[in-house]
Amino acid sequence: MNAAQNTHRLTLRVLAVTLLFASTAKADEGMWLFNNPPAKVLKQKYDFTPTKQWLDHLQRSSVRFNSGGSGSFVSADGLVMTNHHVGADSLQKMSTPEKDLIKIGFHARTQKEEFKCVDLELNVLESIEDVTDRVSAAVKPEMDQAAAAKARRAVMNTIEKESLDKTGMRSDVVTLYHGGMYNLYRYKKYTDVRLVFAPEKDIAFFGGDPDNFEYPRYDLDVCFFRVYENDKPAKIEHFLKWSKAGAGDDELVFVSGHPGRTSRLDTMSHLDFLRDVQFPLTLDLLRRRESTLRIFAERSFENLRRAQDELFGYQNSRKARLGGLAGLQDPTIMNAKREAEQKLKQAVDKDPKLKKEYGDAWDEVAKSLGVYRGIYKDYSLLERGQAFNSELFVVARGLLRLADETAKPNADRLREYAEAGLDSLKQQLFSEAPIYADLETVKLADSLSMYLEMAPAGDPLVEKVLAGKSPRERAAELVRGSKLADVAYRKQLSESGASAIAASNDSMLVLARLVDPASRKVRKTYEDDVDEPQRQAYGKIAKARFALYGDSVYPDATFTLRLAFGTVKGYTEADQQVPPWTTIGGAYQHALNHGSKEPFALPESWLKQKGKLDLATPMNFVCTADIIGGNSGSPVVNRAGEVVGLIFDGNIQSLVLDFAYTDVVSRAVSVHSSAIREALRKVYNATELADELGR
Amino acid sequence: MNAAQNTHRLTLRVLAVTLLFASTAKADEGMWLFNNPPAKVLKQKYDFTPTKQWLDHLQRSSVRFNSGGSGSFVSADGLVMTNHHVGADSLQKMSTPEKDLIKIGFHARTQKEEFKCVDLELNVLESIEDVTDRVSAAVKPEMDQAAAAKARRAVMNTIEKESLDKTGMRSDVVTLYHGGMYNLYRYKKYTDVRLVFAPEKDIAFFGGDPDNFEYPRYDLDVCFFRVYENDKPAKIEHFLKWSKAGAGDDELVFVSGHPGRTSRLDTMSHLDFLRDVQFPLTLDLLRRRESTLRIFAERSFENLRRAQDELFGYQNSRKARLGGLAGLQDPTIMNAKREAEQKLKQAVDKDPKLKKEYGDAWDEVAKSLGVYRGIYKDYSLLERGQAFNSELFVVARGLLRLADETAKPNADRLREYAEAGLDSLKQQLFSEAPIYADLETVKLADSLSMYLEMAPAGDPLVEKVLAGKSPRERAAELVRGSKLADVAYRKQLSESGASAIAASNDSMLVLARLVDPASRKVRKTYEDDVDEPQRQAYGKIAKARFALYGDSVYPDATFTLRLAFGTVKGYTEADQQVPPWTTIGGAYQHALNHGSKEPFALPESWLKQKGKLDLATPMNFVCTADIIGGNSGSPVVNRAGEVVGLIFDGNIQSLVLDFAYTDVVSRAVSVHSSAIREALRKVYNATELADELGR
Repeated sequence: MNAAQNTHRLTLRVLAVTLLFASTAKADEGMWLFNNPPAKVLKQKYDFTPTKQWLDHLQRSSVRFNSGGSGSFVSADGLVMTNHHVGADSLQKMSTPEKDLIKIGFHARTQKEEFKCVDLELNVLESIEDVTDRVSAAVKPEMDQAAAAKARRAVMNTIEKESLDKTGMRSDVVTLYHGGMYNLYRYKKYTDVRLVFAPEKDIAFFGGDPDNFEYPRYDLDVCFFRVYENDKPAKIEHFLKWSKAGAGDDELVFVSGHPGRTSRLDTMSHLDFLRDVQFPLTLDLLRRRESTLRIFAERSFENLRRAQDELFGYQNSRKARLGGLAGLQDPTIMNAKREAEQKLKQAVDKDPKLKKEYGDAWDEVAKSLGVYRGIYKDYSLLERGQAFNSELFVVARGLLRLADETAKPNADRLREYAEAGLDSLKQQLFSEAPIYADLETVKLADSLSMYLEMAPAGDPLVEKVLAGKSPRERAAELVRGSKLADVAYRKQLSESGASAIAASNDSMLVLARLVDPASRKVRKTYEDDVDEPQRQAYGKIAKARFALYGDSVYPDATFTLRLAFGTVKGYTEADQQVPPWTTIGGAYQHALNHGSKEPFALPESWLKQKGKLDLATPMNFVCTADIIGGNSGSPVVNRAGEVVGLIFDGNIQSLVLDFAYTDVVSRAVSVHSSAIREALRKVYNATELADELGR
Repeated sequence: MNAAQNTHRLTLRVLAVTLLFASTAKADEGMWLFNNPPAKVLKQKYDFTPTKQWLDHLQRSSVRFNSGGSGSFVSADGLVMTNHHVGADSLQKMSTPEKDLIKIGFHARTQKEEFKCVDLELNVLESIEDVTDRVSAAVKPEMDQAAAAKARRAVMNTIEKESLDKTGMRSDVVTLYHGGMYNLYRYKKYTDVRLVFAPEKDIAFFGGDPDNFEYPRYDLDVCFFRVYENDKPAKIEHFLKWSKAGAGDDELVFVSGHPGRTSRLDTMSHLDFLRDVQFPLTLDLLRRRESTLRIFAERSFENLRRAQDELFGYQNSRKARLGGLAGLQDPTIMNAKREAEQKLKQAVDKDPKLKKEYGDAWDEVAKSLGVYRGIYKDYSLLERGQAFNSELFVVARGLLRLADETAKPNADRLREYAEAGLDSLKQQLFSEAPIYADLETVKLADSLSMYLEMAPAGDPLVEKVLAGKSPRERAAELVRGSKLADVAYRKQLSESGASAIAASNDSMLVLARLVDPASRKVRKTYEDDVDEPQRQAYGKIAKARFALYGDSVYPDATFTLRLAFGTVKGYTEADQQVPPWTTIGGAYQHALNHGSKEPFALPESWLKQKGKLDLATPMNFVCTADIIGGNSGSPVVNRAGEVVGLIFDGNIQSLVLDFAYTDVVSRAVSVHSSAIREALRKVYNATELADELGR
């Protein structure tokens, strides 16, 4: 309880700083763009100046996992380091009933044994180009919202396609500041990615869900892949060296990774929407799915194997969203945000020019959210597919829309079917990842039941979807009636074209066709009346901010590469000093304290090799860097750009970072670089891999 | 999937029978009143006639656990048998950090060691008196709904008080057929109840939540208490003898217990309400509370000990409600219910007299549910207290209302504060059950957060309740600021009277006072505009049914004593024959199949004594008797009235029994009487207890 008070009291102080933005801030705040790094505060607070070369090297050593996470190159031979829980998606897809790679881990002792991932795509950011003017110019003042949305989509699709044709690189137009800036990001793409090493889940996720987002921690949440080109390890120019000592007390460290999403620049009406609508409904959904999957998983070991990665995802998100909602429901944080908004609006109102151009923006955001409230459930159920929680349905919709959209000119397509992204899309659509009929049926039955609960009684589309059956019966029938688990069949169907897909009587394709008109309709309302007005309004607010605060404002997170920084530092909780470090020895003690029962049971390998390990080796540590979900797997580097750690979590107090930065008790949690080397050498006898790190 | 089809197909057939009601039914349907037993069907189908003596003996041998469950006398010295999971509430309250009785079990080797329960009350039904005419006569035709509700409450309070004064017995006016009949039940009450024996949770609840509501099962879900009078074991005239052989194949068996609640006589509009409003919201709440408690419990063994019984309750209800909702969402069941309602309505409409008197009743139920929809959230949050999930709050409200209500004449009081029930109420209010500040804080924080989510933004009562704090902070403050965990303080406050309570600055009392006006207001709307019109309307429907179908209709369950019957019989699932029996040996195999990991780990005692046990002894069995939650702990007896088993669960297919009976795959699950004796003798060396059974 004292901890809560501390958070409360101190959050205020930090917010007072935050509201002025980093131009005057001394806090370790910000998820900075590599083309607009926090040079001033680094100089002022740490007397450090990142050179262009330093930044460029770190940028090109950083890797994005498109399955959702970050990573880095750690050898000249294409070795990529990330978290076990980032790699888990691939481990899950490579596992069999006989070989559960998540549980038992994996170690390729030679390159021949390195195991190709099913559908993993890694991206390395090569260049950033500002295309704001071109995107903005496409939207003419006389256009209504539908026309504006269409024109904006068209120009973004076109820019990406032109870039792809010109450079051959993956090209994404990224929306920054919710519409205040558009940048073209070009990536080098790797799709031949092979698994090199993963520890057992029992040490990677030691402490399980109970310890998730907690500190002190003792997790070896690491995993290594290698990228290949032409069936050979790729030659990598920019990779990170390994620090000899690893992170030290009070040391300045940097995090280069891909924070997924924050809402720090949201207006108050937007935060109210998150608090009253989006977060509560999302949490209901997460708890529901977690419960359904847990019941399935607990029936047998094989069920658990099939469901575990997805179950972890729901548990992880549930904790994160709970923490976020607590922030939204905290008057201290929200009052500070309200004051900041009022100050900004007053400053705009004072200046007649600013007022005329930008003064209406806040009301426009609020208005768009009024529309969103009205369609939120339908949009979630249909277009986000929450009513049809099934891999087969995702495949079916993908096949259907791929055929429909690619028949249109590139400029007219839904964003995700634009020409420049088709290769990546097909990598997912034709993934060899196994689909399990029993798991599919359980998930689909529960989501159909939810659809029935949430839709108005007697809704005609629901009745058509259920076809007079109960959700359980209908789900079983739909899964039984689909052959889309067979990838060859999928490909064949896709190649036979739109008319074959329109005529297919595969049960899931029939369902996808049935739902698509209503789904597209609500998406159009969303894009025309929610997304486009928000882009325009937030564009104005961003310009107002630039005008008043200069370029010292970093954009909200967008799962694109950002630079954060901070200090290795403990904190105080419930009047106790929490030290920044844990040790390998502490892991053994932690297991004992919990009766060595799952999820606090160390794996056999660790029990066996305990005697060899230097128990004083640092295991995990915390720092003040500004991170969020998506940063998992980010390298932590020192001034010299050497690896000193590996981000894998934030503490529970960090979960309000969605909305506002604080460095008092909020901390990023990392695996220490020394623990990785120590464990590789002494627990896993992975000498060659340990030697390769940073070489 | 085949199982689902079978259920589907066969449910229809059984429903066709059900709709005619048991007068012509050969099915083992019904939760019958002891004063209206199913004599006809027992004679027709089983050639068995229960004599008055037979019924009277079984009735008086049956025991109600007011903590929520059933039981029976099984010796002349007051020995009471029930389930471990019924006794768990008491075990939890008697446990300490050093001695977790749920986990390790308990065995009093002498009567001196028998351990007094904190607040347990047992009831034995002594007599039933029909008071329908008197209750009905109190409500005059000219009264509006508020006046009618008041008059009905008054006459019920008065009847109970008169009976208490006359007989000294606990006297409850029970509403049957949702208002079609009012009976006065008189109970002998036992409040000195002592724990005699409980096995370890690992065998009592072997298989845990994954196996709950599943079959085959291998649980020793049994627990023994003893009732005392004047500090000596009570002398019991009516108790059940123990069967030598136990339940046998295809044998007719009876279940005498207290089914909690069914909705078989609900109108279609009422079932729609359950499907669209009550069940989905209840499930959201259950999943939420389960999640919150699980996070708490997983942090440490002591947390788990504190939360385990409550957590089990949420998990159990979650599974039960999920099964119920599946029934409500099953068109086969609902269409059959709809047809039955249409037939009844048509028969009423055909007869001018019936039509005039009862024809509007269905619309009146629908209208009352319209009102209920409008107040459902407020009623749940405030009057049901879902916004304040805290033992301390329950105590605070109890103290406040006890003072306010007892100041009024008995006839004017809220039902639960009527004179006749005050002793039982105080037994709860001044219970020595421990209250844990950490658990209270976690539960209250989550429920305050839910209140904030569910109430309209800016709701003035919410703002007053939170007092400018976040839910977490406010919960911590409220728990810290209350001394009500101290029972002596509670009693002292209660004795100092209404003005002291009105002036108290104990944080929880302040909160209870703040909330009470709004809470009472929504309760009044509920009682006047939902409950009273439903009593009147269902009273009409019941009369119409009696007129058309005679007395062959049994009332919905009301947690009062009922007689069910059925046959020991297996069933077919997924084309597999499920035998009616499991054996003790099967338990060991089941553990092995699940890697002997919790909750599939047998306790030490069972591992140690395996060699002594006759592994062929029947462990659990299923029968077709019509049971539901509340029946847990009911004795299963044979024609001779001897114990052959102990109800502890229903299989997953039985969860639709809320709405309609079926005997095709739906089964009641019991511990076999032989397993109880075998385990007592050979695992626990409890020879004297085993010898006492049925003696």
